[in-house]
Amino acid sequence: MYIKGVGMTKFGISGKFSQMLAYEATLEALNDADINFKDIDAVVCSSLEWFFSIEKQRHFAALLASVFKTHKPIIRVPAACAGGGAALWVAQQLGYDNVLVVGVEKLMTCKSESITDEFMMAAESKWEQVEGLNFPGQNALVAQQYLEKYKKTTTEHLALISFKNHSNALLNPKARFYGRKVTLEEIKNSPIICSPLRLYDCSISVDGAAACVVTNEKTDIKIIGSDLCAEYLPTWEREDSLRWEGTIISSKNAFNQAGVEPSDIDVAEIHDAFTIVELIAYEDLGFCKKGEAYKKIEEGYFNLDGKMPVNTSGGLKAKGHPVSATGLAQIYEIVKQLRGEAKDRQVSKAKIGLAHNIGGAGGTVTCHILKKICG
Amino acid sequence: MYIKGVGMTKFGISGKFSQMLAYEATLEALNDADINFKDIDAVVCSSLEWFFSIEKQRHFAALLASVFKTHKPIIRVPAACAGGGAALWVAQQLGYDNVLVVGVEKLMTCKSESITDEFMMAAESKWEQVEGLNFPGQNALVAQQYLEKYKKTTTEHLALISFKNHSNALLNPKARFYGRKVTLEEIKNSPIICSPLRLYDCSISVDGAAACVVTNEKTDIKIIGSDLCAEYLPTWEREDSLRWEGTIISSKNAFNQAGVEPSDIDVAEIHDAFTIVELIAYEDLGFCKKGEAYKKIEEGYFNLDGKMPVNTSGGLKAKGHPVSATGLAQIYEIVKQLRGEAKDRQVSKAKIGLAHNIGGAGGTVTCHILKKICG
Repeated sequence: MYIKGVGMTKFGISGKFSQMLAYEATLEALNDADINFKDIDAVVCSSLEWFFSIEKQRHFAALLASVFKTHKPIIRVPAACAGGGAALWVAQQLGYDNVLVVGVEKLMTCKSESITDEFMMAAESKWEQVEGLNFPGQNALVAQQYLEKYKKTTTEHLALISFKNHSNALLNPKARFYGRKVTLEEIKNSPIICSPLRLYDCSISVDGAAACVVTNEKTDIKIIGSDLCAEYLPTWEREDSLRWEGTIISSKNAFNQAGVEPSDIDVAEIHDAFTIVELIAYEDLGFCKKGEAYKKIEEGYFNLDGKMPVNTSGGLKAKGHPVSATGLAQIYEIVKQLRGEAKDRQVSKAKIGLAHNIGGAGGTVTCHILKKICG
Repeated sequence: MYIKGVGMTKFGISGKFSQMLAYEATLEALNDADINFKDIDAVVCSSLEWFFSIEKQRHFAALLASVFKTHKPIIRVPAACAGGGAALWVAQQLGYDNVLVVGVEKLMTCKSESITDEFMMAAESKWEQVEGLNFPGQNALVAQQYLEKYKKTTTEHLALISFKNHSNALLNPKARFYGRKVTLEEIKNSPIICSPLRLYDCSISVDGAAACVVTNEKTDIKIIGSDLCAEYLPTWEREDSLRWEGTIISSKNAFNQAGVEPSDIDVAEIHDAFTIVELIAYEDLGFCKKGEAYKKIEEGYFNLDGKMPVNTSGGLKAKGHPVSATGLAQIYEIVKQLRGEAKDRQVSKAKIGLAHNIGGAGGTVTCHILKKICG
């Protein structure tokens, strides 16, 4: 399948309801594709429909039917933070000519206490939730283990990932942290959230929507690899916290489908819910060996001017992380990069890009590989 | 596509967690299909993951990965009360040889106050929810309008629908009301919930799961029609409350795919969330003209010994309505009927069956038509 058009709202604090954010991202995607909504055969949406949100809407597909005034099939595919990637994976397989994929989340209208409760529900309930093992805690444990096992890696490397993503966001007008310069010192001295993770090691919750049109018609952007992988929800059931099976399996499958190697990737959006998650993904995706990510971080390999820029959009860290929209915002960025439309943050000669989206602490993982088709 | 195996738990009050109910229904479906889980290529699940539930699990797909110890793709497709039907519709299109479809809900562990809040979220929030227009209220308005417009129809006809479904449930060991005889007098004298709907006009919330294996291998049960249709969430945006567009469109599409007429259907499971919903569906599905359902109700056309038995399982009314499991429990019943395995409630010579599943007040509707393949 191919991608015909992409759209996304600015990520941040929005006074608009979810369906209006979805509408805005869709409109941009339709304009970008140069088609009308009547050309769309089906819609796959993704949203978590937070209970504590002021929106109180639990049947988002039917709400979109009202917004778009359509009776065409609309399904919702939530998958914690991997909802966008999961929706894109499903959309390709529905057998239609043109499928609209749209992900949206409103996080800024919930109180932080209630949103923590809801986030926690994506973790295992009987041991993890009751121990207060929320996502910063869970990922801090991973970071502790990693730093203990691979002693050449330090919190300095984590800070450099954060600094890279913030520096990229400075160049992305749709990013939450656009225009807000953050220094490496500021990152390294930010408050501890859960040791060793500091404030700037954690992604930022925002409101936002992103959309794309998937088509069987040949366009300039082809989806050459697409995979979705499930992983055991309870983290203690997994053999090794420092290898995320969902990432390893889904990327391996996507690379096999695409017939390319990790070294063929020119630009990537990696799920940096926490800096340690991005670091481990470098390894699990095959960009470097286990325990050796620190070398590439030191040499600036993943920087905007490096060999393979990662999270040129600013990533979840600094562009923002509107849960179910995130996977599709990654696709937006990769498409813009491959087309050469990324302006100040353009990677030169990018032909093949990868998007990596994680739900929960790795419970659902999707990998998509896109290729620029010339001529 | 074909159906290879079906399974469901007993519907009622269960001490088991959702994932265990899903496991139980899956095990029966796998045994029925005579395959092992390793033969399954992907899983489509459906569950609403109620916030107020004691389960507090929001990433059900990853929970199932743990239960089944698999890394194969698992996606979740909730669609309010049409989640089961929506999951089945998606499963057929994933391009795999064998897909497990499983729907589950735990409703009996929520307090009635909180579950009402959550149910309400499937209705429009800005006018309907704030006016307290919950689903009994919404459907009572429909019933009031219907009885006002079609004066030959009375609450007696609604009571007869309830009585039929309760009589069928008496013969279904997996039904909530199995073994609990309900008389027509009891139904007609039951407390008013929202006029003209009485207690026995409303379906019964239960815990339960249902599953099926969809396959591209030829079996004795072929899915000859399958459609999913979206309808505007706000009910005031619809032209006519007495014609449910979702049902009309999805059934028309399914009949066209199947190449059959309503008169070819031998047995049907119809979404009787309320008796008035079943009555209107008789008409919208094409089994009788608008305003004339009362005639067929009077002649016992839809009774177990009638021309086209409806809700032989007991329906949502008396088998029970575990939201996301309902659409797949309908498939379970139709498969059992077509195979001649429905025992005391067997419809003679049933060759073609229909399952009709509604989400919310019609916001998502699915129709599936199954055919017994001989020889």
